[in-house]
Amino acid sequence: MSAIPAVPRSARTRSWWGWGYTDAHPDDVECAAMGALLPGTLARPLPIPRIADLPIARPTVTPPPSLAHLATADPRVRAAHAMGKAYRDVIRALRARPGRIPDLVAHPTVDREVADLLAWAGEHDVAVVPYGGGSSVVGGVEYRGDAHRAVLSLDLTSMDRVLEVDTAGRSAHIQAGALGPVLEEQLRPHGLTLRHFPQSFEFSTLGGWLATRAGGHYATGRTHIDDFVQSLRVITPAGAGTSWRLPASGAGPSPDRFFLGSEGALGVITEAWMRLQERPRHKAAASVAFTDFHRALDAVRAIAQSDLAPANCRLLDAGEALFSGASRDGSSVLVLGFESATGPVGDRLASAVDLARAHSGRAETPPADRDASADSAGSAVSAWRSAFLRMPYLRDGLARMGAVVETFETAATWDKLPALIDAVRTELGAAALKITGHPATINCRLTHVYPDGAAPYFTVAVAGRPGDEVEVWDDIKAVAGEILHRHRATITHHHAVGRDHRAGYDLQRPEPFALALRAAKDALDPHRILNPGVLLD
Amino acid sequence: MSAIPAVPRSARTRSWWGWGYTDAHPDDVECAAMGALLPGTLARPLPIPRIADLPIARPTVTPPPSLAHLATADPRVRAAHAMGKAYRDVIRALRARPGRIPDLVAHPTVDREVADLLAWAGEHDVAVVPYGGGSSVVGGVEYRGDAHRAVLSLDLTSMDRVLEVDTAGRSAHIQAGALGPVLEEQLRPHGLTLRHFPQSFEFSTLGGWLATRAGGHYATGRTHIDDFVQSLRVITPAGAGTSWRLPASGAGPSPDRFFLGSEGALGVITEAWMRLQERPRHKAAASVAFTDFHRALDAVRAIAQSDLAPANCRLLDAGEALFSGASRDGSSVLVLGFESATGPVGDRLASAVDLARAHSGRAETPPADRDASADSAGSAVSAWRSAFLRMPYLRDGLARMGAVVETFETAATWDKLPALIDAVRTELGAAALKITGHPATINCRLTHVYPDGAAPYFTVAVAGRPGDEVEVWDDIKAVAGEILHRHRATITHHHAVGRDHRAGYDLQRPEPFALALRAAKDALDPHRILNPGVLLD
Repeated sequence: MSAIPAVPRSARTRSWWGWGYTDAHPDDVECAAMGALLPGTLARPLPIPRIADLPIARPTVTPPPSLAHLATADPRVRAAHAMGKAYRDVIRALRARPGRIPDLVAHPTVDREVADLLAWAGEHDVAVVPYGGGSSVVGGVEYRGDAHRAVLSLDLTSMDRVLEVDTAGRSAHIQAGALGPVLEEQLRPHGLTLRHFPQSFEFSTLGGWLATRAGGHYATGRTHIDDFVQSLRVITPAGAGTSWRLPASGAGPSPDRFFLGSEGALGVITEAWMRLQERPRHKAAASVAFTDFHRALDAVRAIAQSDLAPANCRLLDAGEALFSGASRDGSSVLVLGFESATGPVGDRLASAVDLARAHSGRAETPPADRDASADSAGSAVSAWRSAFLRMPYLRDGLARMGAVVETFETAATWDKLPALIDAVRTELGAAALKITGHPATINCRLTHVYPDGAAPYFTVAVAGRPGDEVEVWDDIKAVAGEILHRHRATITHHHAVGRDHRAGYDLQRPEPFALALRAAKDALDPHRILNPGVLLD
Repeated sequence: MSAIPAVPRSARTRSWWGWGYTDAHPDDVECAAMGALLPGTLARPLPIPRIADLPIARPTVTPPPSLAHLATADPRVRAAHAMGKAYRDVIRALRARPGRIPDLVAHPTVDREVADLLAWAGEHDVAVVPYGGGSSVVGGVEYRGDAHRAVLSLDLTSMDRVLEVDTAGRSAHIQAGALGPVLEEQLRPHGLTLRHFPQSFEFSTLGGWLATRAGGHYATGRTHIDDFVQSLRVITPAGAGTSWRLPASGAGPSPDRFFLGSEGALGVITEAWMRLQERPRHKAAASVAFTDFHRALDAVRAIAQSDLAPANCRLLDAGEALFSGASRDGSSVLVLGFESATGPVGDRLASAVDLARAHSGRAETPPADRDASADSAGSAVSAWRSAFLRMPYLRDGLARMGAVVETFETAATWDKLPALIDAVRTELGAAALKITGHPATINCRLTHVYPDGAAPYFTVAVAGRPGDEVEVWDDIKAVAGEILHRHRATITHHHAVGRDHRAGYDLQRPEPFALALRAAKDALDPHRILNPGVLLD
């Protein structure tokens, strides 16, 4: 084992109001070009919002001298911590109608400071919103209402070090505030990687992934961050605790699984021991086109039920394939990728492609094993990868054109999937038309697949009613949630519940578990200061 | 989907006091032969105990007429439900010192009856001990103390049907009281299998597996029953609930994972949708001998960290190998097995054997892919398999010879394993000698392996002090628990906590989770009738 001192940080500027880095935002010309594809949008983009235009009041509380150095009331910092990065957040920034702006933002550097801040907040009726990368797309990092005297955004990103690496045991002790690139950079010298690459990778933290049960790199098998947790450290107002580093245990209900997904409502995750991977030495990728989306679903099911275990197995419907450049002929496209640190994976890819062909798939790229350092996959695969990382930026560009854009994701068993996907296309499309008067574009892809089902991810884009985009979004979201509920598809597969999914979550959660969760909340957070409104009232 | 009516049941007679079927018990001659191998044991076996010799009082409660038909006060049934099948239970039966015998045994057939029994028990201060196959080896299905007016054993085995099979989605809706063979028999016509084969397979139920987070067939990957759960139905005194059938979800902390491992203390699991496997069509097995156990550990780690994913990867130390007949020359033996419904597995076996050879292993059986219907693996593999199922019967034979036998299992990260295993051998051996005056036999095997650690399983056998075997066992158990705690190895990997592991569990469980668990218990079981003493006071 060895400790690693260096912590790299990006020099690029994060946007306070929109996704990612400011230098990657589409410019006005690109925004207008995108808007032209969606009937009814604005003639020119909304201006980039200015913090000076926001209603930022003076803080209503002052931290005690012992904690004052950790907290700031700087309006720019507070504005950047007011909301996450859902469409709803971006349009509220663009319309200068942000969520409640926190009174203070604190940057603790050690556990003791986290505990002291919680104790102070509990005594002074200050709501505490744990904050990692701030990339929540479900209203997970804002405060709604006015039940508390003040709001503190608890930014964990000053706790971003890999504390220890166990090379032989392939695991590392990592502080929760490390952003994806920050922790991967520290693991790289050891030849190890967490291999958790959500779309938000650059802008989200380990603690955020754990608190929201983030979905990661692998499309099959260990799809969620949950499976990579060896041990968690959690600080609650009622005390702190650390689970033992264990490869597995059967001692009572899993303590870690109770805090995974707790979204900051039960405690603050400050550290975790995570299971790592060797960097893959072998990769192979291919794409397969399908004329019939339902045949493609069958192909994906066959692959998910084999023991081939692709790392990537993403099915794009015709709209997604067109948008990402993976196909221009109206085909659905299945993007397959295999990787291994142990041995060649070309045979597994070939077997998967064979299964796809048996379900009427047309393989675009001849499967070939290749060195992992090369990145010369088929054009559809590359196109998809680039588009994937660019999507949230484009969403913000569309928002500036007055479009309403919603991305929502779910999971359901195979028997329910065809009807669910059809219902979203037809019913949500009809609802969006009724709400806005404009036709909506609705695309679907499968992001993660399982032997017993899959996780569809939907993108809805429609021209909004200028000035009422939030209300339009809320109405569309309500219809989407109702469709998911009716089909018994989970309200979220990996985006979390936050505040935006509460209605669906409350209906879905079994009542005995709701009772247990409420009781645990009372016990761990007696002053009810922790991220009020997520998961529970 | 289709429903299946037939429910097969075994015609063989279960032992009320010892493991398994009475016709498989070793006879007096075999008992004496085993005893002769362990210095200081009795000259002749203790007689098989008789229910007539037990102190069985009249029940102190009577169920209401509406529930009377579900309950029995038959002394034979009550005696058979008084304890599980730990050594501690068997010796108490042999010494006519059983745990508290339940006043009544109820056999509900539908959820409504379970709920009604819980309601009645809550009103009348009757402790309820959920009971499946009764194979607990941790004191999980008995009542200790006298804090309640009466004790009801809630036997779920009348709820043993596979209610529905989703063939395309490879899952089934199964009642919790189905014993292993009973559910497999109902799945067989569909070409599907749960493939959960703990040592207790014939004598344990789905509900028991779920409530105790049982370890199953697979030595790598999805080692616990947890990973095969799609949905759970739980009945608590505060209400019932069913989680949705989902292939995966990220909506809040997993509700199922909170009830998995709850050991009947939070509710009664009555049904589950379980993920199934196709029956494997390809199998391959081999054994590898090692002169040096520590080199064997390195070999196992290399295999666990590859992506070969053996179904079986059990490392026997010299004593285990000798006992099971896998080796007679003092070698440690690694038993490897691969299986697949998709394609041949000979290559994967060959790669695993190569890894073992690279760590000084000597392959005994030339790896060869074979049809799954054949069962002609190497002799060490076969010997191990037979011995595995016979072990608990032999333990009872040794108990009849006055031996004290304890099997305990744990899991730890790779960095801790060598010192842990050495400490158990030396320190526990010394303690057993000091406690009993006799040398102990201590064997170790790895039952499940992970990229970041493994699960060792220890067997300790030593001549007891006649009449004081329970006290000797308690003393040895305390030393074992202390060693595990000092090495930060879990108090149980798959046997559960029950009552026998409470001391270690209480020390291991992080305090915030303890607070949450206690609060949940108060909310779900306000009268504190559910399996009092497991997990919590």
